[in-house]
Amino acid sequence: MSSDTHTDPSTDSSTDLYIGVDVGGTKVLAGEVDPDGGVRRTARRATPGRRVEVALVEQALTEAVAEVAAGRRVAGVGIAAAGFVDAVGERVVFAPHLPWRGEEVRARLQSRWDVPVVLDNDANCAARAEATLGAARDEPDFLLVTMGTGIGGGVVLGGRVHRGRNGMAGEFGHMQVVPDGRPCECGGEGCWEQYTSGNALVRAARSRVGRVPTALTAACGGDPEALTGPMVTEAASGGDRAALEAFGTVGDWLGVGVANLVAAFDPPLVVVGGGVSAAADLLLDPARAALARSLVGSEHRDLPEVVRAHFGGDAGIVGAALLARQTRA
Amino acid sequence: MSSDTHTDPSTDSSTDLYIGVDVGGTKVLAGEVDPDGGVRRTARRATPGRRVEVALVEQALTEAVAEVAAGRRVAGVGIAAAGFVDAVGERVVFAPHLPWRGEEVRARLQSRWDVPVVLDNDANCAARAEATLGAARDEPDFLLVTMGTGIGGGVVLGGRVHRGRNGMAGEFGHMQVVPDGRPCECGGEGCWEQYTSGNALVRAARSRVGRVPTALTAACGGDPEALTGPMVTEAASGGDRAALEAFGTVGDWLGVGVANLVAAFDPPLVVVGGGVSAAADLLLDPARAALARSLVGSEHRDLPEVVRAHFGGDAGIVGAALLARQTRA
Repeated sequence: MSSDTHTDPSTDSSTDLYIGVDVGGTKVLAGEVDPDGGVRRTARRATPGRRVEVALVEQALTEAVAEVAAGRRVAGVGIAAAGFVDAVGERVVFAPHLPWRGEEVRARLQSRWDVPVVLDNDANCAARAEATLGAARDEPDFLLVTMGTGIGGGVVLGGRVHRGRNGMAGEFGHMQVVPDGRPCECGGEGCWEQYTSGNALVRAARSRVGRVPTALTAACGGDPEALTGPMVTEAASGGDRAALEAFGTVGDWLGVGVANLVAAFDPPLVVVGGGVSAAADLLLDPARAALARSLVGSEHRDLPEVVRAHFGGDAGIVGAALLARQTRA
Repeated sequence: MSSDTHTDPSTDSSTDLYIGVDVGGTKVLAGEVDPDGGVRRTARRATPGRRVEVALVEQALTEAVAEVAAGRRVAGVGIAAAGFVDAVGERVVFAPHLPWRGEEVRARLQSRWDVPVVLDNDANCAARAEATLGAARDEPDFLLVTMGTGIGGGVVLGGRVHRGRNGMAGEFGHMQVVPDGRPCECGGEGCWEQYTSGNALVRAARSRVGRVPTALTAACGGDPEALTGPMVTEAASGGDRAALEAFGTVGDWLGVGVANLVAAFDPPLVVVGGGVSAAADLLLDPARAALARSLVGSEHRDLPEVVRAHFGGDAGIVGAALLARQTRA
């Protein structure tokens, strides 16, 4: 599987139908993707969960792809999976939020659909989208941090996605930031994504529901369990103090962890994507402040830019479709 | 400045005198280095400290180099500095344990000595030595963690030292592992090197002095403040339980931090160097256990090898001299 990112997709035939599918912890999102990264039509299914039969997840993928294809001939499908994908792009070896455990996902779906299928980690797909057509298209070296249900990451050096020995590089979400900290779905404790991610945002906001009448409390009808990430973002955008505090907490943790990554990689650019990044500076301002405060020698160096991803929630499907387009026979 | 690591130094004239100088938090070590990495003669001075005049540190360097040269013509000197060195190898921009702050160290020493001088971070020098002639000579991708007074780090990808935008990549020692943790010389709190390093080892051992009569207590005459790292290593090598516990604590923290690095880089090899690595498996066995326990998805991946550096305490001077040899006009 190619890891090239800076090839020019505009040389492909724009009439061919390429579909990207992002398989995340909460939803399966499929989309028809143009050569320039535009998303024409999408279909969505709920992710059945991590303790269900594998067949249920693959059925959800199949339905979403069929809905997008709508009977047309498909030139290729790219799968962006929220989990560890092996170095050759064949298997999902482990996925904290999904039931796949060492499954030969690529070959099985290719056989089932009779269409060329490629597979990569969702954050690597997003990194490819940002590198080729997005926020990092002028920067060959950058890190991507995606904040969805959990945290994903991508390492791009010299314009290429660095995948590592096992294809597992960039798993930033499971770096331990708190000894004996919050338990994580991965089996560890104190993983970074327990403190900054979509789930972490909702947790931080839930603890602030109901103390006083606020937009946050109103949004969920006073029931913390009914609160969702988009509700928190909307309340914060409207100036709700409790929601802004939740973003402050999660943004601070984002910056602390980014400081750790910058200490290791010293990149010129950090791109923040995933659903939570829709909040833009509500999230990134506290993150930038924490980065400047936490990063060793920050007064003696150029700090990396910390910017919002161009593709937002579409990055996975765009990058997966781009990979499919690049790797067609 | 070249960052090549896999050139063949044996093509250089072996009669030319190249000197490497390692400027660490506690000592300045200069050495004459053969093309094959052998160290012929060395000279040592105590590092004057981080709150003294810069001239005192540079005087210590000058004395050490002169002692090694012993009146012979010097072809080149490489300086391995325990601090941040800029991306072009001219300035030490910041050094937690040294007084240099943005000093034009390379040009000033070259002018003072009238000899070609090159400069790099000590851990990058060590990484170059291990990549070219040491424990990683067959592995183009690896991470180096050096445990001296603090922690240094080197990132080698595709046989090259990855230096980053500011030349500050690989500063693993200042990744935060404990929120509001132990204060660090860098101004931060909870930095990794506060939990695993030469200083951390001595701290862990001091807290165990005097409880019961042990080899550790005997080594320092019952005075915890008199305890040194080599005393702890010697006591542990002799089976002293308190000293072994200190290595267990520090080795565990080493493994936890390495797990964070492996989550990010997914390398096939981690090389552990610096003075503390002289303890070999007393340090590395608890580190390997903690790595296997802490690394996300460890049961689904090939774990990296964790090996002791080939050059031990000489890595900095060997790598610095190698850089001087590679970059001569």
